[in-house]
Amino acid sequence: MSDRKCGVWIIGALGSISAAAIAGAALLRKDLIEPAGMITSTILFEDIDLVAMDQIEFAGCDIREGKLLDSLTQLSDGSNAVSLERLLAVKEDLEQTKSWIKRGTCRNCGQAIESLAASDFEPKRHMRDDIDEFRCNLREFKRKKQLETVVVVNLASTEPPIPSSPSYESLAALERSIDEDDDSSVRASTLYSYSAVQEGCPYVNFTPSTGALTPAIVQLAGRKRTPLMGNDGKTGETLVKSALAPMFLWRNLEVLSWEGFNILGNMDGCILENPENKSSKLKTKDHVLSKILGYSPHSRVHIDYVPSLHDQKTAWNFIHFRGFLDARMSLQFIWQGYDSLLAAPLVLDLVRLMELAHRRGEYGLMPHLASYFKEPLCVQAHSLHEQVHLLAEYVRRVKEGPFTT
Amino acid sequence: MSDRKCGVWIIGALGSISAAAIAGAALLRKDLIEPAGMITSTILFEDIDLVAMDQIEFAGCDIREGKLLDSLTQLSDGSNAVSLERLLAVKEDLEQTKSWIKRGTCRNCGQAIESLAASDFEPKRHMRDDIDEFRCNLREFKRKKQLETVVVVNLASTEPPIPSSPSYESLAALERSIDEDDDSSVRASTLYSYSAVQEGCPYVNFTPSTGALTPAIVQLAGRKRTPLMGNDGKTGETLVKSALAPMFLWRNLEVLSWEGFNILGNMDGCILENPENKSSKLKTKDHVLSKILGYSPHSRVHIDYVPSLHDQKTAWNFIHFRGFLDARMSLQFIWQGYDSLLAAPLVLDLVRLMELAHRRGEYGLMPHLASYFKEPLCVQAHSLHEQVHLLAEYVRRVKEGPFTT
Amino acid sequence: MSDRKCGVWIIGALGSISAAAIAGAALLRKDLIEPAGMITSTILFEDIDLVAMDQIEFAGCDIREGKLLDSLTQLSDGSNAVSLERLLAVKEDLEQTKSWIKRGTCRNCGQAIESLAASDFEPKRHMRDDIDEFRCNLREFKRKKQLETVVVVNLASTEPPIPSSPSYESLAALERSIDEDDDSSVRASTLYSYSAVQEGCPYVNFTPSTGALTPAIVQLAGRKRTPLMGNDGKTGETLVKSALAPMFLWRNLEVLSWEGFNILGNMDGCILENPENKSSKLKTKDHVLSKILGYSPHSRVHIDYVPSLHDQKTAWNFIHFRGFLDARMSLQFIWQGYDSLLAAPLVLDLVRLMELAHRRGEYGLMPHLASYFKEPLCVQAHSLHEQVHLLAEYVRRVKEGPFTT
Amino acid sequence: MSDRKCGVWIIGALGSISAAAIAGAALLRKDLIEPAGMITSTILFEDIDLVAMDQIEFAGCDIREGKLLDSLTQLSDGSNAVSLERLLAVKEDLEQTKSWIKRGTCRNCGQAIESLAASDFEPKRHMRDDIDEFRCNLREFKRKKQLETVVVVNLASTEPPIPSSPSYESLAALERSIDEDDDSSVRASTLYSYSAVQEGCPYVNFTPSTGALTPAIVQLAGRKRTPLMGNDGKTGETLVKSALAPMFLWRNLEVLSWEGFNILGNMDGCILENPENKSSKLKTKDHVLSKILGYSPHSRVHIDYVPSLHDQKTAWNFIHFRGFLDARMSLQFIWQGYDSLLAAPLVLDLVRLMELAHRRGEYGLMPHLASYFKEPLCVQAHSLHEQVHLLAEYVRRVKEGPFTT
Repeated sequence: MSDRKCGVWIIGALGSISAAAIAGAALLRKDLIEPAGMITSTILFEDIDLVAMDQIEFAGCDIREGKLLDSLTQLSDGSNAVSLERLLAVKEDLEQTKSWIKRGTCRNCGQAIESLAASDFEPKRHMRDDIDEFRCNLREFKRKKQLETVVVVNLASTEPPIPSSPSYESLAALERSIDEDDDSSVRASTLYSYSAVQEGCPYVNFTPSTGALTPAIVQLAGRKRTPLMGNDGKTGETLVKSALAPMFLWRNLEVLSWEGFNILGNMDGCILENPENKSSKLKTKDHVLSKILGYSPHSRVHIDYVPSLHDQKTAWNFIHFRGFLDARMSLQFIWQGYDSLLAAPLVLDLVRLMELAHRRGEYGLMPHLASYFKEPLCVQAHSLHEQVHLLAEYVRRVKEGPFTT
Repeated sequence: MSDRKCGVWIIGALGSISAAAIAGAALLRKDLIEPAGMITSTILFEDIDLVAMDQIEFAGCDIREGKLLDSLTQLSDGSNAVSLERLLAVKEDLEQTKSWIKRGTCRNCGQAIESLAASDFEPKRHMRDDIDEFRCNLREFKRKKQLETVVVVNLASTEPPIPSSPSYESLAALERSIDEDDDSSVRASTLYSYSAVQEGCPYVNFTPSTGALTPAIVQLAGRKRTPLMGNDGKTGETLVKSALAPMFLWRNLEVLSWEGFNILGNMDGCILENPENKSSKLKTKDHVLSKILGYSPHSRVHIDYVPSLHDQKTAWNFIHFRGFLDARMSLQFIWQGYDSLLAAPLVLDLVRLMELAHRRGEYGLMPHLASYFKEPLCVQAHSLHEQVHLLAEYVRRVKEGPFTT
Repeated sequence: MSDRKCGVWIIGALGSISAAAIAGAALLRKDLIEPAGMITSTILFEDIDLVAMDQIEFAGCDIREGKLLDSLTQLSDGSNAVSLERLLAVKEDLEQTKSWIKRGTCRNCGQAIESLAASDFEPKRHMRDDIDEFRCNLREFKRKKQLETVVVVNLASTEPPIPSSPSYESLAALERSIDEDDDSSVRASTLYSYSAVQEGCPYVNFTPSTGALTPAIVQLAGRKRTPLMGNDGKTGETLVKSALAPMFLWRNLEVLSWEGFNILGNMDGCILENPENKSSKLKTKDHVLSKILGYSPHSRVHIDYVPSLHDQKTAWNFIHFRGFLDARMSLQFIWQGYDSLLAAPLVLDLVRLMELAHRRGEYGLMPHLASYFKEPLCVQAHSLHEQVHLLAEYVRRVKEGPFTT
Repeated sequence: MSDRKCGVWIIGALGSISAAAIAGAALLRKDLIEPAGMITSTILFEDIDLVAMDQIEFAGCDIREGKLLDSLTQLSDGSNAVSLERLLAVKEDLEQTKSWIKRGTCRNCGQAIESLAASDFEPKRHMRDDIDEFRCNLREFKRKKQLETVVVVNLASTEPPIPSSPSYESLAALERSIDEDDDSSVRASTLYSYSAVQEGCPYVNFTPSTGALTPAIVQLAGRKRTPLMGNDGKTGETLVKSALAPMFLWRNLEVLSWEGFNILGNMDGCILENPENKSSKLKTKDHVLSKILGYSPHSRVHIDYVPSLHDQKTAWNFIHFRGFLDARMSLQFIWQGYDSLLAAPLVLDLVRLMELAHRRGEYGLMPHLASYFKEPLCVQAHSLHEQVHLLAEYVRRVKEGPFTT
């Protein structure tokens, strides 16, 4: 392995996923934990030249004030998910990252998100100023830390869906909207992804926010030869869905109804209390079923904010299906997982795989990363095993030799 | 489609799976139900020449006295799984089958099964007499009904496991044991499979009884160019397991414990109350997990007889797993399905696929049928999607042209 | 037991609870079922002189067209809850009731309910005309069937909540609103209860509709010496809640969150899809917890319409609680019951107990019937065992001798 | 409140319940936690003169070697139930107790328990020597700490059931068996309770071990005017059962089957892996249902040892019941609680209530403490609310004035 270095710029750097990912990377470096939850650490990736944990540097931005250590402590207190010993072991690492957490933007993100912003938040300025500052931050990070690549990962709260508009569809229209400082069609997520791609930074949209990876941005990534992927990390209920739904297809058992109830108590849950923001989330959750089954059973998904649960997402799913002689049967499942700890290792995986793709000269959307997302862009495969197959095929190609389109 | 006819000889013909399969075939013929639960009716098998429902004739044997209609009525009363209207629609069909249900053998099947036998059950005679009678029955059925093939399906109650012995391993030793009428190494399931294969009848072991498809019998099937497959139909808890377990593998989440509790109230459950018989069942259920995961988490499976449930199997599974930062999380599922109605369409599928294989000149164990079994013989693939892939590959080969080994 | 006869007039007579109650009474009369679900048939009521099943006559009204037998058949087909044999046994009884099912009113019940009304529904007329017709129906039923008492039971769909107004609070104001035909403060449920009480008929509000038992109506019942009770029959999730919640109190375990998700597919569920109507229901469900515990944990209740479930209500409740050393623990329950079949025996119980109360000269609200209702009027006791204690005390008083206030 | 002091002698002092109780008492003294889970801290006991946490001293014995702090750390590590901060806050308190933890006996406790004993465990000696040593310990503890009362609480692992014998039934026979050092009818639990009562110490049997409170011991307690109570603390599944089962009775819904599956991973679970020991436990769990319902539905209870769960007991119960028109319905519940943290506050409650009873001159079995036990001796009330009523009545009597039998 060479001595190249890879930066990770996290949008929403003070959130609990970010805290878990940064703490986890430090613990892995110190060999204090196993890389559970990371596929890039399994035998599948043996002999693949990925960046190691000690080659990765973290930075990022957030609209809130606060400290990474507090976010992690909260995770530890609330859910007992992180032991105090581990917390102490990474205290210093988290504090060192502090100077690299800059002020972000929540431009046009809706009331729920804006209410989180630090009290001394700057008054609204021209979008071009936001873009300039963000690009400047990325360049400074790259230069000072001597990084070969900076992967930008969006872990910010879910924005309300963006309405369709010309600036969504074409790069030229987007440039015009930005020039005109037009709030009606540009949100923070777009400003971030636009800036990242302009700087040639690989970009991962781990959120459901639809503004991040619009056709306009994909167009720009083609020009800048930058890899992109999203949307919405697949960590819990949807993960189980994408593993279970094919079973009904393969047994020719008709799913009559698939009802999902999610409760959670972290910041993510809090923002999703807001109907506007929730609608983005429910959309990415909804598609999976009909895409796997080929028809649309009755299905509704609820997400409720239950503060006492903190990061421990609990989901009940009731699946009603019809079998032989029209007999009606059911399968229920109850998922209880720490949302941030399920997400964090996927973020580390994605950083390593985006860096690899960038180094190999790949660009545009990355279909082989479909298994990481609830709504994988440009991919028809929605059943988990098909998506995993895409990744395995990619690994095989990487092993075979240098990338050629 | 030609006018060829295919017979199905069911061992355990008066049981509820048999009643459901025979009634279902009649209802399908009359176009009164959809073929839910049958994969051979899906688009995957379009253009494949399979026998149609009106080309299939049923017969079989049982150690109990009784009527098929009563078995079906019991299914209807007990679980409300079959509506009275449907029951009436197939009354006549079931009664017509009656004369074709012969007396079976429970030779060396253990106390639990023997206690089910009809009161006028014949005293023990030489094994060769059982074999002769059974072969005679198969020939008569084939001749009188003018059948091209007779597929034999074992749906009888689970026998205690058969101890390893030379007669298990080699055909010559088996022949000797039969000649010597040796109870220590031959059970009813062996007598049936031996007879069926001698008559060139494709044989499906839908039960966990290990006596049916021993290496000795596989050897004989090679000589007689007869297709075979088993063991133990995969209908419920194990089906879900084989769909879900790969998810943990693909996310590198370590399964710490996977505990299963099954309750059911049909005859199957009643026989499995007996520890001897239960041990066969638990064995086929146990393997799946470690074969998929590559390691053996703590795992125990219980099956309890709860009469009030009748055919409605209810299974609770608790899966404890370790994620990032060693956080422990869980997934639980509750499966509620009518066991016989989940099994019956698989039986019809297997009959059609065994007839096809036989017609194409295939013989020995049939790995492409792995997805139908809890413990598919001679197959390494235990995750459901891999098994389904084997079937899809087979279908592709069939479509491509005539069979060549 | 004397030969007195008691009538039951059901508002919503074509609904599934009504069909189940009428069919159940007939089956009980014929001794074809056990009185499961009826407390008045237990040893607690031994030696209490209650009307027998063959002393009860049914009649009622509905805004829909249709037949009782169809409602029952639907219950049988949809949920397999009623066997065809039982259905046939009561066919004639149900048909005989037909001529006694009159056209009801859905005056001011909101869009969701009005859309159910028969196509030839009469144009709106003055409220006094509705009242006259309804009182006339009750008198005719009583006279022709030679009934000593007619108990009126409201089983109609849930109305939107009624806004507070003078006509809600005082009888005089209510009379004025009726005279002025004032839609803003009078709904169908009020017209029914007003008429019933005017005719001296005991009145049970088995629905959450708040218009039925307003203070104004209770005032009228005092004058007319008529017994009343409601609101909202306690059949499923709330029943379990009222049995379980005291456990947390008695162990000093603090309930942090109690989240409830209900799915069902019958007409009740369909009407509750409408937010206006749902709000009445959620209100009666909500109170229970804080009244038992003495504080209000985080709690939200969802009711979703899932057509494939028909009458089989399925409810998941997640209870998060804090124990010693602040450890967080949980209890979940899953309730699967046929809603109409849980309600019907309670209706029969209430008819018998209201007839008894009326005969004994009791009037006004009946606190001893608290255990039957989600929101028992004028009763502080919300834990199930306290409510049952109220009933047992009442039975003891009845046994001790004649009623004296 | 006076300055009297009360001692607690715990048999099984190094176990996790003991560690939690001792740590909890210390944290309560320091006002660092709320008394969640303790009923004696609720308003019900206002104005009742109970010993305060700073009036209680702990001591005890164990057959294992080890430290209290390690037991608590294990509880904290394994289940994340105790935060490290709290652990640190009581470190010193736990260490101070150390010198007061003596070597106990596992005389005749069966292989499973004996295998836990410290390696330097003394060879078997005469029972009288065990008794002398134990009484000596109690006297020393009382004298040195200047205690008015010492309450002995048995928290040791579950012994195999004791066979019926004369020494079980009469005190004279017990004395003879002890004199004869007769292993066939005396176990460690008897030696402990015999010694405690001889010393006039109130005795609580929080375990299912039947040797502790035999009729012979109750006879002795009469003579020594000592209060006693047991058996088997009611902490989880049985607690829920005793709250829920009455609901079915009160609705006249026939329970057809009630199946229970418990999994846990602490020492208790480990010992219960042994069939001999498990049989004692299952017996106390079994009675509850039939005593509440008045009939015995099909019911089986499993307890499985699942190490990864540590102290987090998880129980699934499936309740099948019959309603109106014979419709079958179900209720399931899943309980997830930390066993030791559910037990510890009950232990503190019992200490306070036994001290009160002793001070008031009460002796023999204490029926008002029924709600604390799975199998409350000499009490017919098994439904939780009836048991709580017994306690409330007792509190009322205490408030009314001094005790008179």
